[in-house]
Amino acid sequence: MSTAGKVIKCKAAVAWEPNKPLVIEEVEVAPPQANEVRIKIVATAVCHTDLYHVFELEDGFPIVLGHEGAGIVESVGSGVTEFQPGDKVIPLCNPQCRECRFCKSPKTNQCEKGWLAHSSVVLASPDSRLTCKGKKVLQYVGTSTFSEYTVVNQIALAKIDPAAPLDKVCLLGCGVCTGFGAAVNTAKVEPGSTCAVFGLGAVGLAAVMGCSAAGAKRIIAVDINPEKFEKAKVFGATECVNPKDHDKPISKVLAEMTNGGVDFSLECVGNVEVMRTALESCVEGWGVSVIVGWTDVADFAARPVQLIAGRTWKGSLLGGFKCKDGIPEMVKAYLDKKVKLDEFITHNMTLDQINDAFELMKRGECIRTVLSVSPQ
Amino acid sequence: MSTAGKVIKCKAAVAWEPNKPLVIEEVEVAPPQANEVRIKIVATAVCHTDLYHVFELEDGFPIVLGHEGAGIVESVGSGVTEFQPGDKVIPLCNPQCRECRFCKSPKTNQCEKGWLAHSSVVLASPDSRLTCKGKKVLQYVGTSTFSEYTVVNQIALAKIDPAAPLDKVCLLGCGVCTGFGAAVNTAKVEPGSTCAVFGLGAVGLAAVMGCSAAGAKRIIAVDINPEKFEKAKVFGATECVNPKDHDKPISKVLAEMTNGGVDFSLECVGNVEVMRTALESCVEGWGVSVIVGWTDVADFAARPVQLIAGRTWKGSLLGGFKCKDGIPEMVKAYLDKKVKLDEFITHNMTLDQINDAFELMKRGECIRTVLSVSPQ
Ligand SMILES: NC(=O)c1ccc[n+]([C@@H]2O[C@H](COP(=O)([O-])OP(=O)(O)OC[C@H]3O[C@@H](n4cnc5c(N)ncnc54)[C@H](O)[C@@H]3O)[C@@H](O)[C@H]2O)c1
Ligand SMILES: NC(=O)c1ccc[n+]([C@@H]2O[C@H](COP(=O)([O-])OP(=O)(O)OC[C@H]3O[C@@H](n4cnc5c(N)ncnc54)[C@H](O)[C@@H]3O)[C@@H](O)[C@H]2O)c1
Ligand SMILES: [Zn+2]
Ligand SMILES: [Zn+2]
Ligand SMILES: [Zn+2]
Ligand SMILES: [Zn+2]
Repeated sequence: MSTAGKVIKCKAAVAWEPNKPLVIEEVEVAPPQANEVRIKIVATAVCHTDLYHVFELEDGFPIVLGHEGAGIVESVGSGVTEFQPGDKVIPLCNPQCRECRFCKSPKTNQCEKGWLAHSSVVLASPDSRLTCKGKKVLQYVGTSTFSEYTVVNQIALAKIDPAAPLDKVCLLGCGVCTGFGAAVNTAKVEPGSTCAVFGLGAVGLAAVMGCSAAGAKRIIAVDINPEKFEKAKVFGATECVNPKDHDKPISKVLAEMTNGGVDFSLECVGNVEVMRTALESCVEGWGVSVIVGWTDVADFAARPVQLIAGRTWKGSLLGGFKCKDGIPEMVKAYLDKKVKLDEFITHNMTLDQINDAFELMKRGECIRTVLSVSPQ
Repeated sequence: MSTAGKVIKCKAAVAWEPNKPLVIEEVEVAPPQANEVRIKIVATAVCHTDLYHVFELEDGFPIVLGHEGAGIVESVGSGVTEFQPGDKVIPLCNPQCRECRFCKSPKTNQCEKGWLAHSSVVLASPDSRLTCKGKKVLQYVGTSTFSEYTVVNQIALAKIDPAAPLDKVCLLGCGVCTGFGAAVNTAKVEPGSTCAVFGLGAVGLAAVMGCSAAGAKRIIAVDINPEKFEKAKVFGATECVNPKDHDKPISKVLAEMTNGGVDFSLECVGNVEVMRTALESCVEGWGVSVIVGWTDVADFAARPVQLIAGRTWKGSLLGGFKCKDGIPEMVKAYLDKKVKLDEFITHNMTLDQINDAFELMKRGECIRTVLSVSPQ
């Protein structure tokens, strides 16, 4: 019996307020409206940015979080021709409308219809199709993958290869593309170069993998948690450094290791002090430092002369990928064994265990936990 | 009677201590040692960075300032084959040794032998050939053009076209190349783009000229001193904005004028707040902001999301020109009427009037004052 056109009642993890555990609730998912697609989420991973919303922000509640997911189209609204029920898809927290001046420019993956362009509704869609106990529930960056069903705009959805295992490629919805692309697309790491990656969660490890794919000669992996180093080597790190093992500033340590500093550095922590360190770890003349880690509660800073000396500071959103185009290509690269995904997954759980997955990430004990959400 | 090989006694403006007027003194200029060249300075201009040294720093005294000069080779030390007595030359505050890894890279104009690479002796050469009243006097960024004679290393000297008028091309020693190159070489301003230049001293006006040469469609000139606007239009500004005329932040004003922000912004003031404003005035997606203004007493700062949204922050030293190659080309461009210089010169004085020239700049009443130093 088809569910198309009807409200679907299903399970979702709702964040009712800041700093509190999520609650598994029954939610109502309205049918897709014009240009929208309703999806059965099969698998989702937890990204640090989900934690950030719950533990660092005051506003944007109640909300269904989750933006690193994969699923199957259940039904489509009017005007949707790109997707059909049964298609395997990945929801895009960074949409691609293909029509705005940003989408038309080869220089950027920001879309004028994306949430960065509307900082008043940052991280929350005003057009949520989710309700719970009679209340509208916000959709996180227009996605909400911590739910058995969700509705997204067609500009925020990518169709992927039907052969793709959803419980693996869900990682490409955010973290892995973010880190990989930050190295390859944003920093534009060069063959033979020396790189440093700060923070070795999934984003940082993917950045290590990106540096390696780009042909870097030395990849120095930096984390204050030495448990991450073994994995970093799996993804291509040539050296690992723990700032806690050194009395001097880590930028000095790296400068000594590299004759003045690295060619490329990537901050994958979300800490403004580490952002400064990452910049200062770059060599004068041509060093490029990319901010990937997310925080909007503090400023990053440096001395003007540190840029005047020839360094460049950039930021990267979702690894610079135009997502509708880029994420299916990354799925293909995984199927062709050109990028690793399985190695990021340290834990498999179910949606009911979402708070355990959050705890694991807070304690730094996982890389990625994949939650199975609906049976395929 | 040749002066070669002998100590030359001549006039120079000595800065004995911070925050005090310069004093015209008799100094002794030792003969050039190996790889050095002694120059008769014919003309010099005053750059804001000279003021900065006297009025913002505590250390680096006594010193002979001045780094925007032009002159004639008087004698050369052993090992110098590139220069001969009588050559017209411009001393380089940013040298080019042609041998270090920086000089060999097309990516940067920093030289490993330059002062930025030795921040312990920033702005002061340990190998000064100047003495006064029995005391060693420091040479500012290895040049010291506020003196009738000075000695520089051959890596810090460019030979220029004998047809060049020294009282004009002295401006190419710093300010004009700095601003012009910051737009052309560092920002890489594109044809048809929209630019904003903050600060309309010689550096900012040269940046306006650079944006114009690069084919920018709109060039918005920003200064809190509206007296600068007329000149800005001479150099190619299409609009002028005075932040004091607006209640809202100037980045908002510019965003409204330009559908979200400019493609390129250049900070030519040396104020960390203006650096932030210049970044924030750039459009998301691809905006590039270049720090040209000089200050090393405070940090610049912004929110991480402002870079993650697709902006790039760079800095520019001497406009990114590899100076031994680039400055003679700019002299040629002036002789070929492809860049303007005369329009920067608002005052002509003599070295004796150096403190008056400083006052003019402090009060914002000049663009460039050219001091005649020695007869040609
Ligand atoms: N820009 C984007 O588009 C984008 C997308 C996704 C995630 N992010 C951000 O990327 C960052 C990383 O995400 P993640 O999921 O990999 O997080 P994570 O929590 O799994 O990993 C963070 C890592 O940083 C390490 N760390 C903490 N402090 C450190 C320090 N001072 N020096 C070095 N390492 C330190 C931790 O030990 C941990 O290994 C987060 O800030 C997240 O919000 C950004
Ligand atoms: N990076 C380099 O290689 C390099 C080289 C030379 C000079 N500089 C620096 O460039 C800067 C400019 O030098 P200059 O010689 O043109 O100086 P200047 O003093 O002639 O010009 C500065 C201009 O900025 C304006 N201004 C001041 N506050 C402002 C504000 N809040 N908003 C907008 N405009 C403001 C002033 O009115 C003035 O017109 C200085 O900081 C100087 O040290 C850097
Ligand atoms: Zn778009
Ligand atoms: Zn994420
Ligand atoms: Zn060199
Ligand atoms: Zn200068």
